[in-house]
Amino acid sequence: MRILGIDCGSQSTGYGIIDSDGTRHRMVACGAIRSDSGQDFAVRLKEIGGKLREVIAAYTPQEAAVEDTFTGDNIRSALKLTHVRGVALFVCAEAGLPVAAYPPAQVKLAVVGNGRADKQQVAWMTRVLLKLDEAPRPADASDALAVAICHAARRSTPVPL
Amino acid sequence: MRILGIDCGSQSTGYGIIDSDGTRHRMVACGAIRSDSGQDFAVRLKEIGGKLREVIAAYTPQEAAVEDTFTGDNIRSALKLTHVRGVALFVCAEAGLPVAAYPPAQVKLAVVGNGRADKQQVAWMTRVLLKLDEAPRPADASDALAVAICHAARRSTPVPL
Repeated sequence: MRILGIDCGSQSTGYGIIDSDGTRHRMVACGAIRSDSGQDFAVRLKEIGGKLREVIAAYTPQEAAVEDTFTGDNIRSALKLTHVRGVALFVCAEAGLPVAAYPPAQVKLAVVGNGRADKQQVAWMTRVLLKLDEAPRPADASDALAVAICHAARRSTPVPL
Repeated sequence: MRILGIDCGSQSTGYGIIDSDGTRHRMVACGAIRSDSGQDFAVRLKEIGGKLREVIAAYTPQEAAVEDTFTGDNIRSALKLTHVRGVALFVCAEAGLPVAAYPPAQVKLAVVGNGRADKQQVAWMTRVLLKLDEAPRPADASDALAVAICHAARRSTPVPL
């Protein structure tokens, strides 16, 4: 099973692709799609969605996973991110990929075994689980791989979007 | 100038297309894209974006306009709507349409002459300005036409997204 994890952000959207049998995982590719914050927002969304489409075409994942929308304290940045998440879901659905969504605590639990793990612990265990010599860079790519690993482990019981 | 106004919603997304010289407006088409709330959310976004793309292809507007994101009290429904807005901006940008965004009060001011006008007043004046025998239906289509009229009147001073 080839899985695409996506970590949505308006400045940088991470992606990570793994092959997994549910317990053993292998990294296929990862990276981050950056967008120029000085540019028109609709044009930025076009670029992010277009590049995500290229990633899907290049690596042909079978399923996709994202994190649940997280509002936090900053509603303005949450709304920016949610536009990107809408585009990511749209592009995945157009490519015929089923998309699952997981709460951040579930991603941490699946990767570290602790729903309150910090970002460093998640990055460390993502590296360990994928048997990589170095931590995946940038951080958004590592986060996206963690979401993919979570989906690989939990896909028998996905949470509705 | 042919303008597409979009009123984003997760249950129903209204669209309205007008031809305008800035003061006189003529309705070209309007309608609403409904999506089945029982369906997977990513698939709903695919359908909404796909139909919006068909509307753009059929009527070839030159510019598009949406309302600013409105959070209101219900953050959950605001986030659903924002996914749809992201898809709408993406589809417009892919079609090469510049997209402007206006605060709801500016739409009311442009259409009714009063930034605090209620929905009925906006619908009434939309009908009057477009010289229609009946109010455009459904309500989301009328709202989208109001956004298009606002853009026609205000496009010399658009507000950044």
